[in-house]
Amino acid sequence: MLIVQKYGGTSVANAERIMNVARRVVDVARTGKHVMVVVSAQGSMTDTLLEKAREVNPQASMREVDMLLCTGEQQSAALLAMACQRFGHSAISLNAVQVGIEATDLYGNAQIESIRTQRVLTEFEKGNIVIVAGFQGVNGFEDFTTLGRGASDTTAVALAATFGADFCEICTDVDGVYTADPRLVPTAKKLDEIGYEDMLELTASGLQKPHHRAVEMAKRFGVKILVRSSMTDAVGTWIKGDETVERLSVSGLVVDRNVARVSVMGLLDRPGVAFQIFSVLAKAQIAVDVILQSVGGASTRDISFTVEKSDLVQVCKILSENQESIGYDMLTTDENLAKLTVVGAGLSTNFGVASDIFEALYDCGVNIQLISASEIKMQVLVDHKYIAKAAQAVHDKLIGDKNE
Amino acid sequence: MLIVQKYGGTSVANAERIMNVARRVVDVARTGKHVMVVVSAQGSMTDTLLEKAREVNPQASMREVDMLLCTGEQQSAALLAMACQRFGHSAISLNAVQVGIEATDLYGNAQIESIRTQRVLTEFEKGNIVIVAGFQGVNGFEDFTTLGRGASDTTAVALAATFGADFCEICTDVDGVYTADPRLVPTAKKLDEIGYEDMLELTASGLQKPHHRAVEMAKRFGVKILVRSSMTDAVGTWIKGDETVERLSVSGLVVDRNVARVSVMGLLDRPGVAFQIFSVLAKAQIAVDVILQSVGGASTRDISFTVEKSDLVQVCKILSENQESIGYDMLTTDENLAKLTVVGAGLSTNFGVASDIFEALYDCGVNIQLISASEIKMQVLVDHKYIAKAAQAVHDKLIGDKNE
Repeated sequence: MLIVQKYGGTSVANAERIMNVARRVVDVARTGKHVMVVVSAQGSMTDTLLEKAREVNPQASMREVDMLLCTGEQQSAALLAMACQRFGHSAISLNAVQVGIEATDLYGNAQIESIRTQRVLTEFEKGNIVIVAGFQGVNGFEDFTTLGRGASDTTAVALAATFGADFCEICTDVDGVYTADPRLVPTAKKLDEIGYEDMLELTASGLQKPHHRAVEMAKRFGVKILVRSSMTDAVGTWIKGDETVERLSVSGLVVDRNVARVSVMGLLDRPGVAFQIFSVLAKAQIAVDVILQSVGGASTRDISFTVEKSDLVQVCKILSENQESIGYDMLTTDENLAKLTVVGAGLSTNFGVASDIFEALYDCGVNIQLISASEIKMQVLVDHKYIAKAAQAVHDKLIGDKNE
Repeated sequence: MLIVQKYGGTSVANAERIMNVARRVVDVARTGKHVMVVVSAQGSMTDTLLEKAREVNPQASMREVDMLLCTGEQQSAALLAMACQRFGHSAISLNAVQVGIEATDLYGNAQIESIRTQRVLTEFEKGNIVIVAGFQGVNGFEDFTTLGRGASDTTAVALAATFGADFCEICTDVDGVYTADPRLVPTAKKLDEIGYEDMLELTASGLQKPHHRAVEMAKRFGVKILVRSSMTDAVGTWIKGDETVERLSVSGLVVDRNVARVSVMGLLDRPGVAFQIFSVLAKAQIAVDVILQSVGGASTRDISFTVEKSDLVQVCKILSENQESIGYDMLTTDENLAKLTVVGAGLSTNFGVASDIFEALYDCGVNIQLISASEIKMQVLVDHKYIAKAAQAVHDKLIGDKNE
């Protein structure tokens, strides 16, 4: 029996919280299970280190940034091992090199390629709780690479897959996956379980915990995830195989405020024009989300899409530089938007769901700026001032009413 | 041509100082030399990390303490590499595992056994300045071990020896080796050069920079050390082969306030009694310094010795517990002492030096509590209130008068 647990930066932010985590970890180990724990850097450590790097060189090589950042997780891993020892259980912390978490060369956003097992198994044989520094790998040059923000979740799932863990607990500051953010929608309900597919739609649409890539990896390797609180013993939410989960008509709602709309107006109505726009953006590694093409004037088309707010300035610059080759009349942008995503199997089979969404928004007087629908999700952009009202209204209509 | 430079924690305490160090390093690299730089953790980082460890577990395993501490040097190495890049020179930071600084297993106080050369040579071939995290090694279990406080100096000298560096610069917050601490003796003079032997006597007697073990290693491998300021371009002090240095009658004075005297009174005058005392203290790993045996009563002896102040309570406890087996009447202790050490070749050849010391102390009215003399050094214990006066008087008599 092997359990992998992951604790985020908030859960290990200070000595008291580390002791709390250690108590939980040791409790599990005392039941006779092997326990592997993945930790993030303490609290705002990663931001503090990034600020230190920026002070000496805003254009520092990513190799050195990763060398700097990976110390944060090593510190919390060592501290947690010490805390477990205090509760009378032997424990050892390992960084990515020591475990052998082999990753790609791409500094700052590497992918795990394989994980060696020898050192960890040796430590289990010695009776140790194994604490692993999350968020990091080692590449072919024996250098540290980091796996992208939030990637400690991915480390945990990858370890769970490699060592055949019973499941992977992601212990965080929320006690499960909710039908909506409870801070925004007080009537939001905690889900008992959710399938990988629905979960992926939620994380792709702005839900931050657990991390999208971790869920992808869990789906690929069939690792069951339990999302639960690191502070309480509340039952969490299971994320598992779609076939084993009773699919709800609507699994949940996500609100994303980090979104800006760009509209390219007056495009000539000829093939390849959309390709041109998105290829210049792809070259600049800008992620484009919701895309809509609509009829403009008599012989023209408009294309609208959303990007992350922080990319907006660059997007406008790139499109302006390419105005002639793309051939368009004008750009308009809107930053005062928020995106509401509704995810659920019901969207493909139950045509009433879409009309319920529109009705709920109409009833509360919220104007829809843009609509995009796929098989199991629907996304609407609304004025960011009304997003809380919109989320509450849609949640009441689709979930609140029906499940109560 | 290869130069190894070492910068201590004060020299890399913040972004501004790191930029200053980077400018110096890049300036040397631009002259066409290979440069290897060893750095300590920033400012009080090591103490901060130790405090974090103490909070979660005051009895944490040293293995985990080392795992925690070694991140400090890795951080400053990465930051300095970034700063060198900002000045337009490629640079790479390496930790002990990446360099291959193989050390003994003893966590917290390991010794360097050997250093692999491949990675560093590869980085030199690429034209990189190589920045190495000091104070750390990797043991046979692929675990980090630290080399003891102040051991970044040792890392630097070991690297200089391994790679055949022209010399090893120890850049610090003083601009050389002085005949006495200038804060205590304003007339103290900077030495242009000093032999290994004299330097070792000074560092053994309380002089902290450079680190004693680094000088030992430099002597063993014939590495020339240049102690200089990390802030100014002032000429520093060369530490090198005794045969190449013009030996002064008196090389310098050191004051050590971290000293307490213990006197064991009324010991039976029989063989083995001193052995008994010092073997029980050795078992408890207590370092004993100046030792003096004197005539007590008719058939008894007194033995006095000094220990570090922080060890005094434990020493008294151990001796009290063994009073019967050792067989003594009473213990007296004195914490209000300071030790003045005079080092120089003249002490063995020029009998006038010793009497000059006593005369200087007599003239300024300082009472000597205890005297100990060896071939090239003389140590006196005086009341700590008068140590500055004593140091100034002895310095004036032996050095100030003669060299001016």
